[in-house]
Amino acid sequence: MKKFWITDGKVSIEEVVALVTRREAGAINTFIGTVREFTKGKKTLYLDYQAYIPMAEKKLMQIGEEIKKKWPDAETAIVHRVGRLDISDIAVVIAVSTPHRADSYEASRYAIERIKEIVPIWKKEHWEDGETWVGNQLETTPYPKGYPEVKNND
Amino acid sequence: MKKFWITDGKVSIEEVVALVTRREAGAINTFIGTVREFTKGKKTLYLDYQAYIPMAEKKLMQIGEEIKKKWPDAETAIVHRVGRLDISDIAVVIAVSTPHRADSYEASRYAIERIKEIVPIWKKEHWEDGETWVGNQLETTPYPKGYPEVKNND
Repeated sequence: MKKFWITDGKVSIEEVVALVTRREAGAINTFIGTVREFTKGKKTLYLDYQAYIPMAEKKLMQIGEEIKKKWPDAETAIVHRVGRLDISDIAVVIAVSTPHRADSYEASRYAIERIKEIVPIWKKEHWEDGETWVGNQLETTPYPKGYPEVKNND
Repeated sequence: MKKFWITDGKVSIEEVVALVTRREAGAINTFIGTVREFTKGKKTLYLDYQAYIPMAEKKLMQIGEEIKKKWPDAETAIVHRVGRLDISDIAVVIAVSTPHRADSYEASRYAIERIKEIVPIWKKEHWEDGETWVGNQLETTPYPKGYPEVKNND
């Protein structure tokens, strides 16, 4: 079963948790990223996420492997949604199961930081008063060259 | 709506998450405690949790208030199950939503540690070869006096 994937539909938390539930686990930490209405006082109406899907899924799998090396007893599943997301919609769910709770928190936190560092998913913010491509999720680089270009005023 | 409660039925993760989902939140951390099959090489068949329910719910609410003081932007919901739980059943779900992700992890971790410190819930382990009352969840005290007594071989 696929444990690292990109979807353009609604995300089910229970589905992601089920993928890591097992007899050896006593702890499951999940991180759920949702669309927030206000960022530094600016109002978001909705978001568009775009991904280069094969590469994004490969990078999510890589994060799972990194976690396995650091926390050999951990099982991880991650789904990230793309397309249009409204306020409070779920953009990402990470679930990590471990025998004991401390590891589940640490590995889950590691996963979300790595997603923002290495997974090629771009976010377009549709503000009340305009639109901006935020670039990568750390917001340190612009929408990259070489990926299909999307105009700011499409 | 009740956000801190004890139940003797199956726990729905989505229900707990829904209680903290809101337009101001960009992050929801959940911690899910499940019944693990092996503890230090000993095989568990199933668990019984018992709680003094009014006090347990009051203590869960207190944890919510403590979180509100430490992380004013956080919203918390917690459910703990009692009765017989089989392997992989969910015993506890904590959900904490915050505007930004770091706080959601910290407040969620705080909640599970406090549950184990102050909430009067006792666990009876039904091992392959016998039964033991584990006492409180930190496993530092025996089944307390003053609560209805349960015999080890009931």
